[in-house]
Amino acid sequence: MVGFKSSTNANTAVQMLLKRLKTITPTAQEVSLHLSLNRIAYEDITSKNNIPVSDKSSMDGYAVSAEDTFSASETNPLILRIVGKVNIGTFPSITVKHGEATEIATGAYTPKGANAVVMIEHSTKLSNNRVQVIRPVVPYQNISRLGDDVKKGQIVLKKGLKVKPQDIGLLAELGVSRLNVVEKPRVAVVSTGNELIDITQESKKSKIFDVNRHMTIASVTDLGGEPLDMGIVKDEFDAIKNLLLKSLSLADIVIVSAGTSVGEKDLVPDVLDSLDRKGMLLHGVSIKPGYPTGIAIIKGKPVISLPGFPVSNFMAFNVIARPLIAHMLGTRVDPEPSVRAKMVSRVTNSGGFRVFVRVKIMRSAEGFKAEPIAASGSGILTSLTNADGIVTIPEDREGLDEGEDVEVTLLRPIR
Amino acid sequence: MVGFKSSTNANTAVQMLLKRLKTITPTAQEVSLHLSLNRIAYEDITSKNNIPVSDKSSMDGYAVSAEDTFSASETNPLILRIVGKVNIGTFPSITVKHGEATEIATGAYTPKGANAVVMIEHSTKLSNNRVQVIRPVVPYQNISRLGDDVKKGQIVLKKGLKVKPQDIGLLAELGVSRLNVVEKPRVAVVSTGNELIDITQESKKSKIFDVNRHMTIASVTDLGGEPLDMGIVKDEFDAIKNLLLKSLSLADIVIVSAGTSVGEKDLVPDVLDSLDRKGMLLHGVSIKPGYPTGIAIIKGKPVISLPGFPVSNFMAFNVIARPLIAHMLGTRVDPEPSVRAKMVSRVTNSGGFRVFVRVKIMRSAEGFKAEPIAASGSGILTSLTNADGIVTIPEDREGLDEGEDVEVTLLRPIR
Repeated sequence: MVGFKSSTNANTAVQMLLKRLKTITPTAQEVSLHLSLNRIAYEDITSKNNIPVSDKSSMDGYAVSAEDTFSASETNPLILRIVGKVNIGTFPSITVKHGEATEIATGAYTPKGANAVVMIEHSTKLSNNRVQVIRPVVPYQNISRLGDDVKKGQIVLKKGLKVKPQDIGLLAELGVSRLNVVEKPRVAVVSTGNELIDITQESKKSKIFDVNRHMTIASVTDLGGEPLDMGIVKDEFDAIKNLLLKSLSLADIVIVSAGTSVGEKDLVPDVLDSLDRKGMLLHGVSIKPGYPTGIAIIKGKPVISLPGFPVSNFMAFNVIARPLIAHMLGTRVDPEPSVRAKMVSRVTNSGGFRVFVRVKIMRSAEGFKAEPIAASGSGILTSLTNADGIVTIPEDREGLDEGEDVEVTLLRPIR
Repeated sequence: MVGFKSSTNANTAVQMLLKRLKTITPTAQEVSLHLSLNRIAYEDITSKNNIPVSDKSSMDGYAVSAEDTFSASETNPLILRIVGKVNIGTFPSITVKHGEATEIATGAYTPKGANAVVMIEHSTKLSNNRVQVIRPVVPYQNISRLGDDVKKGQIVLKKGLKVKPQDIGLLAELGVSRLNVVEKPRVAVVSTGNELIDITQESKKSKIFDVNRHMTIASVTDLGGEPLDMGIVKDEFDAIKNLLLKSLSLADIVIVSAGTSVGEKDLVPDVLDSLDRKGMLLHGVSIKPGYPTGIAIIKGKPVISLPGFPVSNFMAFNVIARPLIAHMLGTRVDPEPSVRAKMVSRVTNSGGFRVFVRVKIMRSAEGFKAEPIAASGSGILTSLTNADGIVTIPEDREGLDEGEDVEVTLLRPIR
């Protein structure tokens, strides 16, 4: 961590970045309804119709004039003449007059003249097209009224919300077969390091397979971005500079990771400084793992320089790039699943950092317990893949106590 | 709910179903690493190598024989001869003898003869290729040892786990460019109802756009299934029978929804009975909304008959089809995001049901508050799309009290 200019609180870092990107607005992409799943609504969608489009029965029974039934009881049953039957999916042409009723099914539109439905259970069908009613109904009883679900002009999906299955249901109800969603931000992903080869290359024992690029591409996809795989670049100033410039020309966000090593050869901050002296917002974020993170804005576009150790890389991505991608999508960060658990042992914070502790979760008679995973080296990726969840020690705490109740963000379903 | 044969507890219903499908095993599909994201691992993946493949320095400094340094101190500095420099990504050909050291970068493999690294901060480079060391190091200090992250033969991804970005990172570290995931179960989705038209058809005011099919297709996609859109079928026994038979021939699971209405015309249970007298496991699940749900196994394949009212349809899908799809994938149901909140008002359970209450979440000085959404008709889809989350009243509770602490499953990020 030699040579870092500063150490910035994680929230401050994100706010600084997003504030500088305020003027960036999402662009629209029209997609068919099914493909809008988990995309972000580009604009408010309002209903062109009332749903239901007309009063509908919510029961099987008889459509009547409520006023006719006011005095009906078991001792004083009302007899009505059945003048027809109303089926689902058609507007009835019939009109119900005083002393009359129509048979009606759940979901069928009520005929003119009828303003209530008597449940089948409160009636008895008689001979000669007559029905006996033994309970009164009040006006609009057992009727789902015009506009009860959605009113014409009502917003049914708000701009910036993620489209969920229930939204797709509602949009289908309104006959919406295509809609505008936010275009996925393009995220160029670069890895740097002389020691790196790609998984598509033949293995050479002395070389190290690039981890961070693949992990970042997966995270970007998961968060609704469009990853652009820019490959691996050697630790050479000009090579890095050229690839970053190419990335900036193609993408909305650039994420560049060091190789699995960090050290004298981390040229990315120098390259970023050379591209725009005022572009480098900060270098060094107060998170552990993940400290050696740099943030720049070059040619108006965010460039995130992530540390090389894979666990640091993962954590810094989640702290910085996750809210950044949500911002570019014009939406909020999705909530993550979590559980309450008791710490099995004390964990400490060396001061002022936000510390991410990988934990195993165990079930016990007193509820969940969170046990820190011993191998804590940020180069040890299995400390993350074997973890059930992550416990965060906030910046203002010196540690978490044994037995303390904590919130564990889940990485996996609990066994 | 007239004519239902039984009312089965939701957990019992799911267990009955899954027990009958015990012998169904997932099939494999080989995909490239990026496409394995959020798919289910078909088999345990073991490492073919140690990671690191050889001892590596975890610091910038000097590779030494630890024994040489045991007496080193500020008052008794040790002088070593620098015999070379070790770069990242190559196996050093050099051997370090007693009295010697090599310069070494973080991540570089240690040369033969060296079993520790002195940090650059604890050394001073002198003239004539010499370095002065002022602190002792113990054997393997500042060295990341062969197999520290992953040991040869170790399981790095367990069968049945969902592949997350961190897993993709670890698989990349091992050079895995393709892997076997579980093939997506094919889920045929059918809607029934004379009143229904599809969103792709021209609107007719008296007809109702099919909601449930589109919502189910989205939910199936979300849960990692492969939806097959089988379209809309009229309320006619033979038409339903033929479409269900076709669906059974194409898919692993069939989900058939009634139209927005339910009533005399719900022919699905009769059709299922006609296809396999022993196939109908149950009709009527003790959930609200969602009671009129049927479960059958026809020709060895699960058929779920979901109720027509969209909110009931959504809830029943989540209770029955969600664990079913997870079972077919050989995995566990994913945890869902939730928050603790206090109920703003009492909600009641009419007895023995699992009740799903749609709520709005509000922030207050005392934390989150959950306010039940008034319009509770299960035909009112906006009661679901406008909800921030769902509170569950368990079967053994008569209600939830005003002010009671509850867990709210989130449908949306909280505003």
